[in-house]
Amino acid sequence: MANISVLGICGSLRRQSYNLGALQAAGELMPQGMALTITRFDAIPLFNQDLEAQAAPPAVLQLAQEIRDADAVLFASPEYNFSISGVLKNAIDWMSRQKPQPFKDKPVALMSATLGPVGGARHQYELRKVLGCLEALVMPRPEVFINLCQPKFDADVHLVDAAARKAVQDQMTAFGAWTARMLGR
Amino acid sequence: MANISVLGICGSLRRQSYNLGALQAAGELMPQGMALTITRFDAIPLFNQDLEAQAAPPAVLQLAQEIRDADAVLFASPEYNFSISGVLKNAIDWMSRQKPQPFKDKPVALMSATLGPVGGARHQYELRKVLGCLEALVMPRPEVFINLCQPKFDADVHLVDAAARKAVQDQMTAFGAWTARMLGR
Amino acid sequence: MANISVLGICGSLRRQSYNLGALQAAGELMPQGMALTITRFDAIPLFNQDLEAQAAPPAVLQLAQEIRDADAVLFASPEYNFSISGVLKNAIDWMSRQKPQPFKDKPVALMSATLGPVGGARHQYELRKVLGCLEALVMPRPEVFINLCQPKFDADVHLVDAAARKAVQDQMTAFGAWTARMLGR
Amino acid sequence: MANISVLGICGSLRRQSYNLGALQAAGELMPQGMALTITRFDAIPLFNQDLEAQAAPPAVLQLAQEIRDADAVLFASPEYNFSISGVLKNAIDWMSRQKPQPFKDKPVALMSATLGPVGGARHQYELRKVLGCLEALVMPRPEVFINLCQPKFDADVHLVDAAARKAVQDQMTAFGAWTARMLGR
Repeated sequence: MANISVLGICGSLRRQSYNLGALQAAGELMPQGMALTITRFDAIPLFNQDLEAQAAPPAVLQLAQEIRDADAVLFASPEYNFSISGVLKNAIDWMSRQKPQPFKDKPVALMSATLGPVGGARHQYELRKVLGCLEALVMPRPEVFINLCQPKFDADVHLVDAAARKAVQDQMTAFGAWTARMLGR
Repeated sequence: MANISVLGICGSLRRQSYNLGALQAAGELMPQGMALTITRFDAIPLFNQDLEAQAAPPAVLQLAQEIRDADAVLFASPEYNFSISGVLKNAIDWMSRQKPQPFKDKPVALMSATLGPVGGARHQYELRKVLGCLEALVMPRPEVFINLCQPKFDADVHLVDAAARKAVQDQMTAFGAWTARMLGR
Repeated sequence: MANISVLGICGSLRRQSYNLGALQAAGELMPQGMALTITRFDAIPLFNQDLEAQAAPPAVLQLAQEIRDADAVLFASPEYNFSISGVLKNAIDWMSRQKPQPFKDKPVALMSATLGPVGGARHQYELRKVLGCLEALVMPRPEVFINLCQPKFDADVHLVDAAARKAVQDQMTAFGAWTARMLGR
Repeated sequence: MANISVLGICGSLRRQSYNLGALQAAGELMPQGMALTITRFDAIPLFNQDLEAQAAPPAVLQLAQEIRDADAVLFASPEYNFSISGVLKNAIDWMSRQKPQPFKDKPVALMSATLGPVGGARHQYELRKVLGCLEALVMPRPEVFINLCQPKFDADVHLVDAAARKAVQDQMTAFGAWTARMLGR
């Protein structure tokens, strides 16, 4: 496989986030030739067009450039109140106003680790809709929903559940192929 | 009609927001007995469970109390990237963690003023889903979509379009009845 | 509790449908004073405005009257291809054209029994959106998702899983209260 | 442009459907090298797993083969009750069970002609979700929403509005490029 650089974005700002753990597992389980870098967006302020009119905050410019520099983007995100977390949506709202718009034509995959019986499904399709607005190329399948009704991470937020690791690994293999195909490599 | 206090929440932080103008029009066009107070949530920080573990920010406690004190809540919100604005979703995410949860059993109505041919429809149903998660009682109809393809506000962001004013007025009349019914008054 | 008649609608036409089993369990587990009748819509044809212009088919008129005659409606529905089953949506499309429109102001609750890790969540919110269009009064919570990853029905499609039965029972108790409240009884 | 065959599917069974008119306009406005064939699915029955267990109806087999034989699929669909028409969803439900599944890896574009202020937007994203389930490659943009608040078709259901024709033409040009890219031509 051609070398593929993937930027990991976690939808929660929490230090011990399970979704951060899911990203780390994805990094470990990627096929040879793919490499993951995980970013953070803690310093991105609340979006306000009045603020934007002055100058884009440095954290916004930095995230936009990280996305542009990556071959592909992997989201792992919790679901807050049946939808995309406000903090993640806020970061995406900032991105959408940068030029060139960083998500355009970018291969993307989605994962989520959530509590509750239908974990993740309430927000992943909305996140797909938002990313479609930005003309990202979101891989349709395989989907990854890590259900935390049973514990699947250890105390260091390391994904230890074998079935979940297999699902992540399968998705990463497919994501490598999807990215290569979308980029015409 | 029994006296009904309505809290208006604008989904954009921009000072000259058209949705703020739509809220103001709703305040003018409400039937006798209803009264609107418009709040702001500029001071609510990005949600972070680590931060929350310390103490809820004062702006969060204040908005939660304003919602609890109102008989009903009216949202007017733009649509960012085909969904709820990140800043509004972030405020709602904070609200969902306050006890008692302020949206539970609260009558709610939705409006939006947006650019584009299908303005507002891409996010209003997602906002309904989120508010349903919080057990708000969202009025199904009439819907209000203020399409800004043609100018409908004057330079002071005052809603001047007659058809749009009629739609807002009709919704407010229905919202008074919905609130009275939901509260058993 | 005041006497409440509930019409059960299963989203699948299959004779041995698990969702039909879920409805039957709901009928058994309803609190005293509530009674369930399960209907079928096998004879409703594909919707076609040209056909409608002639005369509404008898099966359409009958289902519309059954809905009008019931105090409340309970849906139990599978999810086909991440959304509402076409056959259920087709029946609802017919209903929406009958006068008086049968779902208007009707208290409704939703359940689903589905295979897969996030069973039911991909369609229940879309079904809520559709029913909101028709001004039904859909109970926000508690939700019921019966996940068939592990078997929960016996060979006679009788719901035997204790946790699932408890979830159905709790929903029915809440649904009785919701219906009484929405009808002002 | 390489020769690209497109199958047009109209979401309404009505003979004088505006969406059929939109498909016809798309056929006229396609760039050289693209060719449209419009199909119908009137003879596809209501989906029922019991029926399916016997043998797939001929109309189902035929539509599946038409989709497989086309390079790409173009949907033009009304919106019934804020979502996908039941008749279209029913046809898709049948397709999803055919092997090889005909939508897998198929380039797809969506249009809609609808009444009402936010025409089409309430169902296009749900149709995208459903087609994503089937691993179709749905073009994110440009979107086409033909709003029938003002008349845009003549008495023969021919699209005569210049702006709408331009939007359809632009989409078809983009769809040709999208299809060529997705098929690696």
